[in-house]
Amino acid sequence: MTATQEMSITVITPEVLLEHWQGHRRLTRRMIEAFPEDKLFTYSIGGMRPFAQLVQEFLSMSVPTLHGVATGKWENYQESPVPTTKKELLDRWDEDTQEINRLWPTIPPHRFQEVDKAFGQWEGPGYWILFYIIDNEIHHRGQGYVYLRSLGIEPPPFWDR
Amino acid sequence: MTATQEMSITVITPEVLLEHWQGHRRLTRRMIEAFPEDKLFTYSIGGMRPFAQLVQEFLSMSVPTLHGVATGKWENYQESPVPTTKKELLDRWDEDTQEINRLWPTIPPHRFQEVDKAFGQWEGPGYWILFYIIDNEIHHRGQGYVYLRSLGIEPPPFWDR
Repeated sequence: MTATQEMSITVITPEVLLEHWQGHRRLTRRMIEAFPEDKLFTYSIGGMRPFAQLVQEFLSMSVPTLHGVATGKWENYQESPVPTTKKELLDRWDEDTQEINRLWPTIPPHRFQEVDKAFGQWEGPGYWILFYIIDNEIHHRGQGYVYLRSLGIEPPPFWDR
Repeated sequence: MTATQEMSITVITPEVLLEHWQGHRRLTRRMIEAFPEDKLFTYSIGGMRPFAQLVQEFLSMSVPTLHGVATGKWENYQESPVPTTKKELLDRWDEDTQEINRLWPTIPPHRFQEVDKAFGQWEGPGYWILFYIIDNEIHHRGQGYVYLRSLGIEPPPFWDR
């Protein structure tokens, strides 16, 4: 297969990638809901961060990353303080869902391939930056599955988005 | 943005998706190596499967899925027995790495979009089937990170592929 043929093959469209991400985000939301209120903010295994803190990482990365990919303008990466109630965390989650849907169609097509330095630090093409944050969410959410199981709680099924 | 414009935007090429997957597979290989031999096959939290069993699931899914996406022919999904040593598990992993690289370029371009029923059971487009197995590996590998941390072992960094 030549390079030109290869480039013309569509594996996924931007629309599909957005839906893929929002599907994962719907599952993460169900995970937040599955945690007992106190355990969400305190429960930990092996010195790892409680699930609420991981969720705050997702929130701190998602919209700022999307904004950077869309505009080429990056702020310094900063983690906001973790909300103190499940309701507040879910409200922040739902606000981000809307903001992601709003920002996504503003990504100029060439930005998926263009190499940029996310937050002035991590260099790669736009698709790579976006996959990094999606994969990071899947990765840490998997950690949350162990927290729930060790608490005797059945987590939501992984395949249900 | 019209549907036609949307379809013409390349988010990732097949080549990029292969490298994305193999990058994740390299990290999973480092995770297998990081486990003490006995803990790899026995250690569990909350009644979840030991890491070797999760790795066997990845092995049982990967090449058969790729074969199905490439050819449209599906066998029944079957899990092979878990190897009994770390060396055997790593050898199986490395064989799969080669086989994935060999099969990947045989996927006909239209198969990434074509809807099929994986293993006669799970229906969706080719890209969706492929992302499912990659995401499943990230998800369960995240579980392995908790196992290692709770054993006092530093896991390989998530960003290093």
